[in-house]
Amino acid sequence: MPRHTLEKMVKKEIRVIGIDDSPFNKFKDKKILVVGVVMRGGSWVDGILSTKVDVDGNDATKKITSMIKKCKFKPQLQCIFLDGIAVAGFNVIDVQELNKKTKLPVVVVIRRKPNIKNIKKTLIKINKKQKIKLIEKAGNVVQIGDIFVQLTGIDLEEAKKVLKVVCTRSLIPEPIRLAHLIASGVVLGESRGRA
Amino acid sequence: MPRHTLEKMVKKEIRVIGIDDSPFNKFKDKKILVVGVVMRGGSWVDGILSTKVDVDGNDATKKITSMIKKCKFKPQLQCIFLDGIAVAGFNVIDVQELNKKTKLPVVVVIRRKPNIKNIKKTLIKINKKQKIKLIEKAGNVVQIGDIFVQLTGIDLEEAKKVLKVVCTRSLIPEPIRLAHLIASGVVLGESRGRA
Repeated sequence: MPRHTLEKMVKKEIRVIGIDDSPFNKFKDKKILVVGVVMRGGSWVDGILSTKVDVDGNDATKKITSMIKKCKFKPQLQCIFLDGIAVAGFNVIDVQELNKKTKLPVVVVIRRKPNIKNIKKTLIKINKKQKIKLIEKAGNVVQIGDIFVQLTGIDLEEAKKVLKVVCTRSLIPEPIRLAHLIASGVVLGESRGRA
Repeated sequence: MPRHTLEKMVKKEIRVIGIDDSPFNKFKDKKILVVGVVMRGGSWVDGILSTKVDVDGNDATKKITSMIKKCKFKPQLQCIFLDGIAVAGFNVIDVQELNKKTKLPVVVVIRRKPNIKNIKKTLIKINKKQKIKLIEKAGNVVQIGDIFVQLTGIDLEEAKKVLKVVCTRSLIPEPIRLAHLIASGVVLGESRGRA
């Protein structure tokens, strides 16, 4: 990534989007609310986006890409934060595709180091073997401070700088924290848990 | 209101809730999403609440009271901000009842001075004459800076102090601005307009 992008990125007012899905009942719900929060740095909310994706489906990449590309904040956006690599159960996001189509770096944030071996075993068991490739495409899980990330279109040093700006209220980027509160608050009536 | 409440209120971290409804199609939609944003002062979001109310119905007071009373933030809350006196069309909120049941001051925020005469005429025309009483119960419309308010359970001086803390990003209280962005973003796919 060219030097001028790096410099832009450390700005306190950098425009970023954080995405999270809502809680759901896997025996009942078919479509799940996914919320995107557009912020300036880690303090001010500029806008809220949303879409719906299929439980355990394959449409997350397409739906999230389209949600970001068509929004009015697109020209200013500089980074996408995802809360884990999948939404609505096993609707795994192709982060390389998301990065390519939006031309934006993607930072997958993970709270605890995932047990990739177990996830792969589950995917084979539920006959979703083809999703293993998507997980591998998201790249290595690396630790930054107290969280883990997978980086696409951004290197470790840049990612550290952006995280420093956007993690204002907790260990995770503020737009992800808010997307989680909104998605759970709208679906359950009151927000709960953490992203 | 006793003096100690006033002192608490000017604190920068005062816990408040701002409420707004989502846009809707009055020819199609029956129930409308109403969002509550709980904030500390005008900067940090602590939680998101939501409920649904009938278009042009009579359940707004009950639903909003219950949403606030049962939420985990209730013990810390010190003020309710409403974006106008009605949600979902003519589902008018009884602010005196809301104040009494929640034991919280209610500040109705209005962007432009409402034409009460015209509103009353419309209510008579659509056979909702009984709602005129609710509008009258909300009290006089007074100007504070560039906005107008109706106050219940709080006097003008206190209201001015609280507004100074919570109007961080625009003329209106930040929790109302966010409730508007969330309600419209979740329903329309992208937030638009202003509260």
